[in-house]
Amino acid sequence: MAFELIILGCASATPTSEQYTTSQLLTMREQLFLIDCGEGVQQQLRRHRVKTGRINHIFISHLHGDHYFGLVGLISSFHLQRRKKELHIYGPKPLEEIIHVQLKASKTWLTYPLVFHVTNPDKAELVAETNKVEVYSIPLIHGIATTGFKFIEKHNPRSIDRDAVEKYGVPKHERAAVQRGMDWENEQGEVIPNAKLTVDPPRPLSYAFWSDTCYNPDKVEEISEVDVLYHEATFTQAERDLATQTKHSTAGDAAQIAHAAQVRCLILGHYSSRYPNRDVHLAESKQYFQNVIAGHDNMRIRADHQSIEVV
Amino acid sequence: MAFELIILGCASATPTSEQYTTSQLLTMREQLFLIDCGEGVQQQLRRHRVKTGRINHIFISHLHGDHYFGLVGLISSFHLQRRKKELHIYGPKPLEEIIHVQLKASKTWLTYPLVFHVTNPDKAELVAETNKVEVYSIPLIHGIATTGFKFIEKHNPRSIDRDAVEKYGVPKHERAAVQRGMDWENEQGEVIPNAKLTVDPPRPLSYAFWSDTCYNPDKVEEISEVDVLYHEATFTQAERDLATQTKHSTAGDAAQIAHAAQVRCLILGHYSSRYPNRDVHLAESKQYFQNVIAGHDNMRIRADHQSIEVV
Repeated sequence: MAFELIILGCASATPTSEQYTTSQLLTMREQLFLIDCGEGVQQQLRRHRVKTGRINHIFISHLHGDHYFGLVGLISSFHLQRRKKELHIYGPKPLEEIIHVQLKASKTWLTYPLVFHVTNPDKAELVAETNKVEVYSIPLIHGIATTGFKFIEKHNPRSIDRDAVEKYGVPKHERAAVQRGMDWENEQGEVIPNAKLTVDPPRPLSYAFWSDTCYNPDKVEEISEVDVLYHEATFTQAERDLATQTKHSTAGDAAQIAHAAQVRCLILGHYSSRYPNRDVHLAESKQYFQNVIAGHDNMRIRADHQSIEVV
Repeated sequence: MAFELIILGCASATPTSEQYTTSQLLTMREQLFLIDCGEGVQQQLRRHRVKTGRINHIFISHLHGDHYFGLVGLISSFHLQRRKKELHIYGPKPLEEIIHVQLKASKTWLTYPLVFHVTNPDKAELVAETNKVEVYSIPLIHGIATTGFKFIEKHNPRSIDRDAVEKYGVPKHERAAVQRGMDWENEQGEVIPNAKLTVDPPRPLSYAFWSDTCYNPDKVEEISEVDVLYHEATFTQAERDLATQTKHSTAGDAAQIAHAAQVRCLILGHYSSRYPNRDVHLAESKQYFQNVIAGHDNMRIRADHQSIEVV
């Protein structure tokens, strides 16, 4: 399993007694990334037995409450648990003050460093980087400053082609250099290029989270060929006018983006509470794109190079 | 049923997958009062099928997150539901800014007037008044500015004593004046005092919410003889030092306050998560006060002049 996504919540606007607002936990190369923090995110993390101490990076797409009202509670709980490790938060500029005024009001001096990274809603750029994953912001078009995020595995090093090194007679003590990318010269002075001695690493897997947005084909290149795309689908075609007015998308919009970006799999979410089920969303999106999943709270999606499946 | 209290949450510090932090709904004379707003309060209100449009007054005791992190979500949901009626919020001064920065960040212009009333943590005073209920703040002693609240029914008017007005021959058209408190003069010029023609209204019932606080006997007079007292009992005697250090109470402290104030019934809550059950809390409190209830999430307590019971 190369990566796993848990949809902790995907209701829009207001939580209900059974549904949580937007929040997702992405595990990529064993590292955890929390994306948006709707109210109740702590309950959901506990439900899924997530070791929250492993969460070091939190990404907030925008400052509508259904995407971040659970954040300050999580920050406080980390404090009460006497966390020591840095916590990195990526989000719109006003979020820093929102956190600050609440910590100040409770006279809380966090037990750990909270590092705030302001996202730029006008520019697609690298916002975070670990030893295994890079995260890029993607400007979206919504009522207020909003960014999506793209998570992509860093390139693995090439690995030794065991048959090739035997064939060319590369001595064992020189194989480490080949592994690091060096060409190899044999006793006859013939240079064997590294590409002949090593095999390509697996293609980096990627995940894109397209938060609240109107239909935005201009940014498709930013998510070109990602493995999994989550795209909001607040409405269906019958509410086209409402979607335009509120700067949200329909399921058909999401599918057109998925098709244009040539992603492997599309996950829908952020449904308006007016819909009793996802039948129309699925039918409308399949007009444009086949491999679509109607996301729901507590869904786990696992992906590797061979398959993408709900588990 | 003169009043009903629903404990929406009574965990301390952090919510768990099954427990909510502090929040209570008091119904007194058919009017709703929301007291503290821990994260997830909306889910709990929905669970109890509360018509949230009937909530016009919200009281926040202090700005530790477990007592108010659910407030801004509720304010936002009222907006999304296109509420028109005034919403009155009573709480510490910084809360107004906390609400304001979050509404501003989401570019939200509320559909309804939000009226903020600053509580004074140094003074017991009348903070709210409806046509049926008065609410007083009570200064408490905690790590940050904290107030409790006392809710007391307003005096009903005296009611006509039917036997007496017949006996004295008060004509029907003069009984309204008697009802309003007037004495009555008969044809012989004899004045019959109002007290002889009317009966006392029922005694006003009262409820006191003593939020996070250390043992604070100095304020007992403020809650003298209330019908129901909710008092935090974060700890038991074994954690006496910790209670002192964190300015919280033990179950025994709560019971001593209940005893000194001569209340009818004590409800405990705000338990530290270290205790697997309430057995020790109950045993310790019963050393000082007998009529004690160990509160828990989703408990409903009804009270009238005859009885106080968990339903």
